[in-house]
Amino acid sequence: MCSVMNRVKPVQRALALTLRLRANTVDSSYAAAENRRLSPGVSSTVGPLRSTTRRYCSRMALKEGLLFKQLFESESSTYTYLLADTETKEAVLIDPVLETIERDLKLIRELGVNLKVAVNTHCHADHITSTGLMKKRLVGLKSAISKFSGASADILLSEGDKVTFGKHYLTVRETPGHTDGCMTLVMGDQSMAFTGDALLIRGCGRTDFQQGCAKKLFESVHQKIFTLPDQCLIYPAHDYLGQTVSTVGEERKFNPRLTKSLEEFVNIMNNLNLPKPKKIDISVPANLVCGVHEV
Amino acid sequence: MCSVMNRVKPVQRALALTLRLRANTVDSSYAAAENRRLSPGVSSTVGPLRSTTRRYCSRMALKEGLLFKQLFESESSTYTYLLADTETKEAVLIDPVLETIERDLKLIRELGVNLKVAVNTHCHADHITSTGLMKKRLVGLKSAISKFSGASADILLSEGDKVTFGKHYLTVRETPGHTDGCMTLVMGDQSMAFTGDALLIRGCGRTDFQQGCAKKLFESVHQKIFTLPDQCLIYPAHDYLGQTVSTVGEERKFNPRLTKSLEEFVNIMNNLNLPKPKKIDISVPANLVCGVHEV
Repeated sequence: MCSVMNRVKPVQRALALTLRLRANTVDSSYAAAENRRLSPGVSSTVGPLRSTTRRYCSRMALKEGLLFKQLFESESSTYTYLLADTETKEAVLIDPVLETIERDLKLIRELGVNLKVAVNTHCHADHITSTGLMKKRLVGLKSAISKFSGASADILLSEGDKVTFGKHYLTVRETPGHTDGCMTLVMGDQSMAFTGDALLIRGCGRTDFQQGCAKKLFESVHQKIFTLPDQCLIYPAHDYLGQTVSTVGEERKFNPRLTKSLEEFVNIMNNLNLPKPKKIDISVPANLVCGVHEV
Repeated sequence: MCSVMNRVKPVQRALALTLRLRANTVDSSYAAAENRRLSPGVSSTVGPLRSTTRRYCSRMALKEGLLFKQLFESESSTYTYLLADTETKEAVLIDPVLETIERDLKLIRELGVNLKVAVNTHCHADHITSTGLMKKRLVGLKSAISKFSGASADILLSEGDKVTFGKHYLTVRETPGHTDGCMTLVMGDQSMAFTGDALLIRGCGRTDFQQGCAKKLFESVHQKIFTLPDQCLIYPAHDYLGQTVSTVGEERKFNPRLTKSLEEFVNIMNNLNLPKPKKIDISVPANLVCGVHEV
């Protein structure tokens, strides 16, 4: 570790130290959560349906041979998604969080999947990705992020690129607006879309920092997400109300912001007056290098 | 309200008062959560895969015409499930929580479903059900719970009973052990099982209060849940680690408690030394009457 530390820049060295300290706390955070799990029952501190069969049907797509797990990290309210081909066992992980790395690695081990790619939908400001640390634990794992994110990773993605796992693949749709490097990852059969912070359930990501632009976000959602089939399931990077899934059809009808005109949307987004994310000064520099000082 | 209050017993009157006070806070809790939702990006305080295609495939069952929503209540870490027939719009709600009644009613309204039955998998000790209050808001809604729960409801369920919504139905399997009145609700095609606190993801409900019995729980899980197909999805009433779904196959292989012998399991369960649930003295009396003083 020391020899590596000597080669990195001072700012990265300080960051690496922070991250080492954080990494050391991962196990104990996990242990605390395990303790809560062992006490179930103990409170912790911690469109209308269409007549056609598939429209607005909020359930997993009818695609054979796909393993799918939605996972939640409660501190930053982030969803992580594991997708795998049940035949080849090749897997992709979307938006993994440092705090839940032990849980996610345990699940990957138990299910016997071979994690090929860990991809971030964008350079998050509210949590540190576990991508870099996970690369140290899983041989052959590649990190991926948008080439417009400004972040370094093994794979820099852009419009139309495919992230393949076995017979399945995710297609990249660039959906900037929350940040310049935001992507939506769409399953090959358009049954599911992982929208990151571009489109949330009945909401959307803020546009007041990190190259945020309300007009750009409005156009991204309308041109790249709302053009997907109504029954396409929406899996966002976050939810703060305990909602787990939506559909394109539902959001086109009920999203309180994205159903407005461009002008109204921009006005709403420019007047949210939100506080700065608590962890932005740590998270963004870390996430520019996959959460660790070396990619 | 006063005339009703005069007819009920003193203990119920006190409880009703508590619940009225609680009910008044529901909207403000919802508003607080809505505020968090409006600040995405801001930290809040608040077996191995098988070679066959469907085994261990953790995704929604291949059943046409089913709407399915998993919802989470973060204070008690409770999952609520909404299931509906997309044709007839008849719906069932499993384990709804008082704190999230406004969110759930809004979703029901938006999706245009007709909620027929609100069912509790058991008499919960960690939160108050919204069943009773929801009955006041939705005309024709019936409450349901096990006849062995000791609780009053419109429908008292027992082994083999069916809860029907459109062309779908849930079958009752009695799975006592956490409490005497615990049930597992199994989709007609055995694609999903709502296990309440009997079987959690890599865990199980405690057995040290409310008629809890470790031996009974072990037998319930082995005889009534582990006999379901390996690919049957497990949706529990709680999770404390951000996990959303498991399968019978996974739990049969990886559940750290239920993979033990009966003797070892009983020994583990009898030595957990857990603190008493914080809300048990309020929740259990309330849940015996659907969360309100009148059913």
